Amino acid sequence: MATEKERFVTEITPKSEDFSRWYVDVVRKAELADYSPIKGCMVIQPYGFALWENIRDVLDKKLKETGHMNAYFPLFIPESFLKKEAEHVAGFAPQVAWVTAGGDEELEERLAVRPTSEAIICSMYAKWVKSWRDLPLLINQWANVVRWEKVTRLFLRTTEFLWQEGHTVHATEKEAEEEALKILEIYRRLAEDYLAIPVIPGVKTEGERFAGAVQTYTIEALMADGKALQAGTTHNLGQHFAKAFGIRFEDKDQKLKYAWQTSWGVSSRLIGALVMTHGDDSGLIIPPMVAPIHLVIVPIPASGWEERVLSKAEELEKTLKEAGFRVKADLRTTYSPGWKFSEWELKGVPMRLEVGPKDIEKNQVVLVRRDNREKIFIPQNEMIEKVGIILKEIQKDLFARALKFREENTHQVESYDEFKEVIKNKGGFIRAFWCGDSACEEKVKEETTATIRCIPLSAPEEDGKCIRCGKQARKRVYFAKAY
Amino acid sequence: MATEKERFVTEITPKSEDFSRWYVDVVRKAELADYSPIKGCMVIQPYGFALWENIRDVLDKKLKETGHMNAYFPLFIPESFLKKEAEHVAGFAPQVAWVTAGGDEELEERLAVRPTSEAIICSMYAKWVKSWRDLPLLINQWANVVRWEKVTRLFLRTTEFLWQEGHTVHATEKEAEEEALKILEIYRRLAEDYLAIPVIPGVKTEGERFAGAVQTYTIEALMADGKALQAGTTHNLGQHFAKAFGIRFEDKDQKLKYAWQTSWGVSSRLIGALVMTHGDDSGLIIPPMVAPIHLVIVPIPASGWEERVLSKAEELEKTLKEAGFRVKADLRTTYSPGWKFSEWELKGVPMRLEVGPKDIEKNQVVLVRRDNREKIFIPQNEMIEKVGIILKEIQKDLFARALKFREENTHQVESYDEFKEVIKNKGGFIRAFWCGDSACEEKVKEETTATIRCIPLSAPEEDGKCIRCGKQARKRVYFAKAY
Repeated sequence: MATEKERFVTEITPKSEDFSRWYVDVVRKAELADYSPIKGCMVIQPYGFALWENIRDVLDKKLKETGHMNAYFPLFIPESFLKKEAEHVAGFAPQVAWVTAGGDEELEERLAVRPTSEAIICSMYAKWVKSWRDLPLLINQWANVVRWEKVTRLFLRTTEFLWQEGHTVHATEKEAEEEALKILEIYRRLAEDYLAIPVIPGVKTEGERFAGAVQTYTIEALMADGKALQAGTTHNLGQHFAKAFGIRFEDKDQKLKYAWQTSWGVSSRLIGALVMTHGDDSGLIIPPMVAPIHLVIVPIPASGWEERVLSKAEELEKTLKEAGFRVKADLRTTYSPGWKFSEWELKGVPMRLEVGPKDIEKNQVVLVRRDNREKIFIPQNEMIEKVGIILKEIQKDLFARALKFREENTHQVESYDEFKEVIKNKGGFIRAFWCGDSACEEKVKEETTATIRCIPLSAPEEDGKCIRCGKQARKRVYFAKAY
Repeated sequence: MATEKERFVTEITPKSEDFSRWYVDVVRKAELADYSPIKGCMVIQPYGFALWENIRDVLDKKLKETGHMNAYFPLFIPESFLKKEAEHVAGFAPQVAWVTAGGDEELEERLAVRPTSEAIICSMYAKWVKSWRDLPLLINQWANVVRWEKVTRLFLRTTEFLWQEGHTVHATEKEAEEEALKILEIYRRLAEDYLAIPVIPGVKTEGERFAGAVQTYTIEALMADGKALQAGTTHNLGQHFAKAFGIRFEDKDQKLKYAWQTSWGVSSRLIGALVMTHGDDSGLIIPPMVAPIHLVIVPIPASGWEERVLSKAEELEKTLKEAGFRVKADLRTTYSPGWKFSEWELKGVPMRLEVGPKDIEKNQVVLVRRDNREKIFIPQNEMIEKVGIILKEIQKDLFARALKFREENTHQVESYDEFKEVIKNKGGFIRAFWCGDSACEEKVKEETTATIRCIPLSAPEEDGKCIRCGKQARKRVYFAKAY
């Protein structure tokens, strides 16, 4: 059994040896996703998709509770529409997949496969929005989008990916700004309370802003290799698109005014973030709140006990399912318990329940936590209560562990020499003063490959000197190398 | 108020006057969908999408309960993959939208925007399926697909549409056949028990078969204008794709064998079927099981009573929501009750609850059914129970009414003259003997535009003469003009 287990696990490159290979090994072997024959496009496998469905359902509920409605807009965007907002087309055109023929016919105008849907959605909003009574218009869509990428990585950067994109229209600048911040807070809660990924909410610099936005907000997470990952963004679009597409409404004062807009999105990239935040050398660890399977039951048969143990496992599965847990009894007889342990550890199921002849005699079950491997013996009649409690603990502990990691890997630096040293040898987040000048930001990027991830919303005003130019600076911002 | 109501309603073309215009008026004015700037592509508006979500959730649950898992495969299919199965490419190539460039680069090989995903999914299955232990493989995906259509109609035929497509792999021919029939039965229940649309489950003739299938099963519905609509299909693919893509497995006898497959789908077209089955001259009627809103509360304020009536409406909304109903209180003060009645009738909300000063005095509410306009006065303390009962009645009555319509419009004919007369003057389904020869089927189509919708699964073996050639025939099949 030990050798079997070893063989299984050693198929994963150790995290410390090669983080990139570890990541791909985990995603592939846990059957989250597979490469497809189309360059840069992945297949999201059933286990990975179940995880995505859970993330989607959590967010969808929060969006509906805050008055947002789902809709569906076309996949295709005429080239002329994409060109209406100048910054927007400049930002996205290099990444567009173009449809040029339908059946045997050449198209008169090329159609972009949506890289994001502002251009097509705003053209509809121009038709729908007439009066202040139509506002706010709060629409979201769950969709696939395509961005032609040169270098791709499973979940993190793929040519096609799944996401939600919200597109809202408001009567005032203030409301649009409030919406962008309200959604950012929803994203923060999704990341922290469900995915157990601590994030820094903040503002993007001008250079990192969404093409066409007035302001971009972001939640930034730190991965286990010390690189940052942008986990979600919301954009205050001002009146840029309203003016480009003619979205105007008659206000209460009977004047015709251009509307104010936002857009925002998170994507299947979150799955990559989850893997890189919680995984270990045995594979994936999925926070219980979004886990496709909360616990797996592995029967431990001994000679002569097979039938008794299997039927007990089935009985426990039924009990736990009825109590509302997502549970799976692994009753396969062609695999040993050790092999099963490894497989479900690899797949990151938060907890394992073992039951063998001795346990049946003692009226107990054995729970084993995936995150810290703790083994807990509990009487069967306390099982439901304890499973619920331990799942909550795992959720809390995963977040605490990730937060601790981030804190240990966030470095406040005061000199550029120290900055360069940290980026080179330690990685992680760097908190440092920045004067607000794009030129400094650019130079830091050229010289260190670190970018400003965000100006944190919580940052107090301070007096300091820019890490690069030494001029006066008012805030410490977060720098990091990023995905 | 009367004039307002009239003006609102007369915007819909009467069903009897022009069915096609009535259909478009209802879809547009109920805000189910809108035309987009891209030819043949529609926008599914929030109300229409909420309906789609309900349909999707019902079916998704049934598919998961029967062991199917969701996944996601790429939007793009390399041209060479589409060509691997000869019949398949012949069937779909004329309808394919082709991506020929990514960013500034011309692609070496054109990519089809998926018209259906057999080709890409089978290429992955060839990689995943190795042993009998991997079977059955039961995967479904919810996705957008594109078919370049010359003539389009909202929901019924659009260039892009939403659907689910199931793709399964089995070890034996028998299992594949059973799967195709099992899913057909799930589709029948979706149509009849939820959408209240009676359907005829049957087999497609060779001429109407899915490109690449051995057998295609269908559920066929009859619309209110006497035309048939194919509401869902399942395909037994035999080993066609397994051989084209090399999907082989080591069986229990250790021999390498080609697998057996099925595929199946229903689409957003079901929404069109729902509109055409239940709607009337006042607009849409949505069966309660899938209605985004079960009942709308319209307060009837009288001078001095506004505040009391509005707060009562809110109170009732809360009570009904807590009881699990999808309820909306229409508290807008800028519209009259009559205007609201018309609007919610147009949107097909199954039931309206009115509450005014008199009702408050009498501790009662007034329920009005959308389908038959029946007005029911009930004591407030019986409200929850009665709402539940009446919604069930509406669901049942809608199905019964549609079934009665279908029965009245199904004609058993024995001669070709009668056949032609019925098709020309009455429409509806025709039950008639057919010898099984494609030549007869083709001639009937040329001469009458009617096609064989299906050979019903329930049809008994009989002795008869083919309606067209007079030769021996064993079964009555369903003919109709179709969407």
